[in-house]
Formats: sequence, C-alpha cells, structure tokens
Amino acid sequence: MQEIEFWFSIGSTYTYLTVLRMDQIQRDHGIELKLRPFSVRNIMRQMDNVPFPPSKKSKVDYMWRDIERRSIRYGFPAKVPVPYPLKEFDLANKLAILGVQEGWCAEYLKKTYVAWFQNGQEAGSNPNVTETLVSIGLDPNETLEKIERSAIQDQYEKQTEIAKNKGIFGSPSFIVGDEVFWGDDRLENAIEWSSGIIEA
Amino acid sequence: MQEIEFWFSIGSTYTYLTVLRMDQIQRDHGIELKLRPFSVRNIMRQMDNVPFPPSKKSKVDYMWRDIERRSIRYGFPAKVPVPYPLKEFDLANKLAILGVQEGWCAEYLKKTYVAWFQNGQEAGSNPNVTETLVSIGLDPNETLEKIERSAIQDQYEKQTEIAKNKGIFGSPSFIVGDEVFWGDDRLENAIEWSSGIIEA
Repeated sequence: MQEIEFWFSIGSTYTYLTVLRMDQIQRDHGIELKLRPFSVRNIMRQMDNVPFPPSKKSKVDYMWRDIERRSIRYGFPAKVPVPYPLKEFDLANKLAILGVQEGWCAEYLKKTYVAWFQNGQEAGSNPNVTETLVSIGLDPNETLEKIERSAIQDQYEKQTEIAKNKGIFGSPSFIVGDEVFWGDDRLENAIEWSSGIIEA
Repeated sequence: MQEIEFWFSIGSTYTYLTVLRMDQIQRDHGIELKLRPFSVRNIMRQMDNVPFPPSKKSKVDYMWRDIERRSIRYGFPAKVPVPYPLKEFDLANKLAILGVQEGWCAEYLKKTYVAWFQNGQEAGSNPNVTETLVSIGLDPNETLEKIERSAIQDQYEKQTEIAKNKGIFGSPSFIVGDEVFWGDDRLENAIEWSSGIIEA
C-alpha cells in the first residue's frame, strides 16, 4: 500500500479538515497516512512566525470562515471559532506521540478534534483530554503519567527536528518522497504525486 | 454572465498562476473575472505582515517549489525563483489601475507576468515595463507619464481601502457576494460558490 507521511500538530486549525477526512481518503485512494506528530509551534517560534495573531484580524476571520466553508463542502460540521490557540499544546501532542507508539493515535486524534471543533472543548485541556482517553478505552491518569516520561519528550523533540530538516514549517504537511505538500488543500495533490500522475 | 471580482497585486507570486489561467477559466466556466488591482503591500504593512521574509527560508523554498509544481499541473512553465520582492511594486500596480480605466489591463497583466516568471524580468522595472507596454501597442513614455497623475494614485489608494474593507489581506483574492476566497487554489471554490452549488 502506498504510504504518505502525515505530519501534524494538534493545535493547528486546518488540521481538523484532514483529521476528519483521513479515514475516507485512505479508503478511497488505497493509501496509508503515516501519523507523524511534531511541534509546529517550536518550528514557528524559530522562524519568528505567529500564524494568526490578533493584529491580523481579517486573516483570522478569514481562516475561520474558510474552515467553515470547507467543512460544509466535505460534509461535516465545524462550530467556529473554537478556543485558540491551545493552552496545553505540548500535552496534546505528546499524547499523540504516545498514541503512535501504543497504536491508538488515529482514534485519539479524531476524538480530540471532534470535541474541539464540534463541542468547543479545547484539545489538550479537560474535559477534552479525559473524555477522549476514556472513550478510547484508556485510563487517563495512567496515560498522562506516561507522557511525563523523558522518552516521550525526547521522541517529541526528535520528531520536530526531523520535520524541520525535511523542510516542514506548518501543519498539516504531507510528504511523498522528497516532496513536501503543505495544507489540507494539498492532500489530493500529494496523493496524485504519490501515484505518479504528475512528475517533475 | 456571472461576475467574480479578482483582486490582485502585481508582485504577488501566486497571482502568476491565476493570471496565466484566467482566459481559460473564463471560457470554461462562462464567468467574467473583474480586474481589481490594489496594494496588498500596503495592507500587509498595516498588519505587520511580511509574507516570505528571508528568515522563513523553508517557507520561501516551499513557495517556489509549490508554484513550480502547480504550474506543471496547469500546463505552463515557471522558471522559479524569480526576482522577488519587486523594487517597483507601486509602479507595476498603478499601471494596472490605468489599464483598467483604458481597457488594456488584462493584456498588460499577462505579458508582465510572463516576462517575470518565464524570462526572469522583474515586473515594474525595465526591460519588463517598456517591452510589455510596447507589445500591447502603447507608448511607454506617454503611459508612464499618465500614471504620475494624482488621479491614478488616488484611485490606487481608494481601491486598496475598498479591498481592506472587504476583508482582503492577500493576493489573489476572489469575491463572490460577501464571500472572500484567498489564493489561486480557491478560484474553483469561488466559481462553485458563484454558481450556487455550495451554499452556507
């Protein structure tokens, strides 16, 4: 099966669109999206980049409306604006790192984004975290203890360094061979590329 | 005929893609793109936004590669990177303002972007400006004198103010009713919207 790397940070708004589409996309195209959590916030800080600061009001307003319109187009709701930016960004993403290791990342990702974008419950904070973990059959206390281990922090930093070295600067990003495709709206292009329809 | 406002600044890199596609898009969809030049630089300055500064190297590198890939997909060349940012941004756009008034803006837009993105000749500077104006049957000196008139400057500022009030913060932007669609990759969505396929 064709594999495409799906690099993401929970906390990215447009990543909602990819997370809600990923099951169908994988089925329809016979591809596998390999989950690669990293800290886009860390990379942006290094680039002195704040994607949607309050000073850019028209850009922020546009972002919410654009996500709303695209959700409608894809056939799922988005009650925007949602709480943003995340207070517990790193916690949300370290859970994803653990989830990849233990095999429950995809379920966590979908549940936490749905709670955030459909019920207004901020990802990385309660009640989102506890309810999401319980809903996928995990013990919240035990799971949260695990992400405090240095191995998870190390892996999180390592993945972020790999992302940076691959030229990633935003979430979601998709990698096919050496090509980076940035944005939910480039996922279909990444799939085209991976199937060799377009080459350059 | 369905009209869609096409707000642009010459100097925007992604606008190349729209300019090269606009004839075919208008034919294929039976729509008219109404040309609305404005100063995206002015609006960005107010927002303290520098779209592709050297400090964001990975983002700049990505932008050129993304434009190159999309050009291939659309079927035309793009010899990237091209000289950027433009030294004579305002001159390039004041010519567009005059061109709208005199009816030659579309031709100017296509010629100046082709010279910039296919021959590496910076828009707004020579030889691009002179050769472009001559190629569309205009006298360069006479035309450049006209854009020094205060009426052109006034119109340029007025259009920029209108763009800002409509919530525009980037080029290209498309407007259908009250909806703003930002980016060449949203042009098809704007067309869908204008034809009432999607409503929300």
